[in-house]
Amino acid sequence: MTLHSWKDTQTKQAILDFVAAVTDESSSDFVPPAERIATFDNDGTLWCEKPMYIQLDYLLRKLAAQAESDSSLRSQQPWKAAWEKDFDWLGGAITKHYQGDDSDLQVLGGGILTLSEGQAVEHVEAEAKEFIENERHPTLGLTYRNCIYQPMLELLQYLEANGFINYIVSGGGRDFMRGFVHDLYGIPRERVIGSTVAYRFVESDGGGEIVQRAELDVIDDGPGKPVQIWNVIGRRPILVAGNSNGDLPMMTFAGGPSLPALQLLVVHDDAEREFDYVAGAEKVITTARTKGWTMISMKDDFKVIFA
Amino acid sequence: MTLHSWKDTQTKQAILDFVAAVTDESSSDFVPPAERIATFDNDGTLWCEKPMYIQLDYLLRKLAAQAESDSSLRSQQPWKAAWEKDFDWLGGAITKHYQGDDSDLQVLGGGILTLSEGQAVEHVEAEAKEFIENERHPTLGLTYRNCIYQPMLELLQYLEANGFINYIVSGGGRDFMRGFVHDLYGIPRERVIGSTVAYRFVESDGGGEIVQRAELDVIDDGPGKPVQIWNVIGRRPILVAGNSNGDLPMMTFAGGPSLPALQLLVVHDDAEREFDYVAGAEKVITTARTKGWTMISMKDDFKVIFA
Repeated sequence: MTLHSWKDTQTKQAILDFVAAVTDESSSDFVPPAERIATFDNDGTLWCEKPMYIQLDYLLRKLAAQAESDSSLRSQQPWKAAWEKDFDWLGGAITKHYQGDDSDLQVLGGGILTLSEGQAVEHVEAEAKEFIENERHPTLGLTYRNCIYQPMLELLQYLEANGFINYIVSGGGRDFMRGFVHDLYGIPRERVIGSTVAYRFVESDGGGEIVQRAELDVIDDGPGKPVQIWNVIGRRPILVAGNSNGDLPMMTFAGGPSLPALQLLVVHDDAEREFDYVAGAEKVITTARTKGWTMISMKDDFKVIFA
Repeated sequence: MTLHSWKDTQTKQAILDFVAAVTDESSSDFVPPAERIATFDNDGTLWCEKPMYIQLDYLLRKLAAQAESDSSLRSQQPWKAAWEKDFDWLGGAITKHYQGDDSDLQVLGGGILTLSEGQAVEHVEAEAKEFIENERHPTLGLTYRNCIYQPMLELLQYLEANGFINYIVSGGGRDFMRGFVHDLYGIPRERVIGSTVAYRFVESDGGGEIVQRAELDVIDDGPGKPVQIWNVIGRRPILVAGNSNGDLPMMTFAGGPSLPALQLLVVHDDAEREFDYVAGAEKVITTARTKGWTMISMKDDFKVIFA
């Protein structure tokens, strides 16, 4: 059954109507399959991002493990906070960032970047996959891999069945995601766009290796999302789904002067089944209202949230 | 007919054998379709690169046009050389580069970069397409779009018919190529990997625009090729075709520890029908011999070169 975890609301109808129009050759909104590009944010759009990004949990545990084996790191941020599970310091880094002070966030980011130096990409992927398949969300009682939103998974499947080409376009790490996106979402690894560190090609007898460096290459957030979409795909999406201010430029970019577009904004308003928050989404919510984009209320539009 | 512009040589047989093996489910070399990635260099591999890169001709004409409309540029390199068609200075910049002196090449590159500032990507593509469809090769008597190698085009088609996913991985400009690769090679725009300037996302009512900046982002040559292949595809190719030293890391990268690989090296040895040169390919030719890669002799393996 199509979208069976969605309630029969106007939101679901808007999706059905859009897909019907762009796949109907007699419609003025018809879009040929090669151009049916759909781009999905990941954190907060396809899976849960609270109380912290799943990847951040993964990275903090790696910092803590370093501090565990090297006690000299325990007095040094961000290892100190990771090792002591000092969520006040970690949360404070984000709060200060919103207040215009990036000092602690840079310390955190700098520590995280050191984790990349010399890591073979296949190793990073395998570790990330093991992490999300075995570690658990702190409050939902689910392993991380089960923190994906069932209605959004059905949406991906429904779009694919209608000739759409689904991409993930996330602020999260591309190499972190590539290890599990096909298992979780049915999206092949070449359709994952995300933030990334720079690489080094290391020659070797076995065909050489791609190895990460401790240097940012791409920040796939905000205006970086349409830029990366063009870098990788070279086409405008006709369907976009996001949930935060960082998705606003990508949502604006959809359709453009010549193609139809459906913008979907996931609104986190279900404190009982997931989380209820607007922080970091204030601007995109206002814009969605002004432009008449389609708002997905997790409370009112989702029959179930997790499978 | 399969590869009908190829002579019945060992080279053709090596291609047929490899494709038979990786598509035969009972073979130990079987590769599932999703992993049948083929990457092709463009200049000198899919189309002619002599007496100069086709894109360089395009760029020099743009510099000359600027000098035409602004006489003050005519005394300043590289506009002076472009306007005066001073191929000694232009060729000298390359020769000096090979001798370890990049000073003139940097002047040339700097001038070329200024052409990008503020250019909408769609405009660049449209202009490139018009150029290759209308302008002619200086000696072959062909419009540039017809300077593609017919046997290589048939190889692309043959691979696609056997479930391969063909990509272009070129040192040339990605935005330059995206406007015509589908017409010329049947390769969709999202499968073009190339060098590129940085972008800017410009907000506007019509969905915003991707605009080029006068700043290099990616140099897709040498070790940059496997790095970009991983950035965009996240898979190792199993079939690679190249012709110059800049393709060596990509050719080394093919297959890797777990997949079979076919490395094809196009050797330019046909002075009569195309060009005869090894400059810039010395190292890759030596490596191909050492490793037993498949050398394509344009003279001995191609029945026809151009359609």
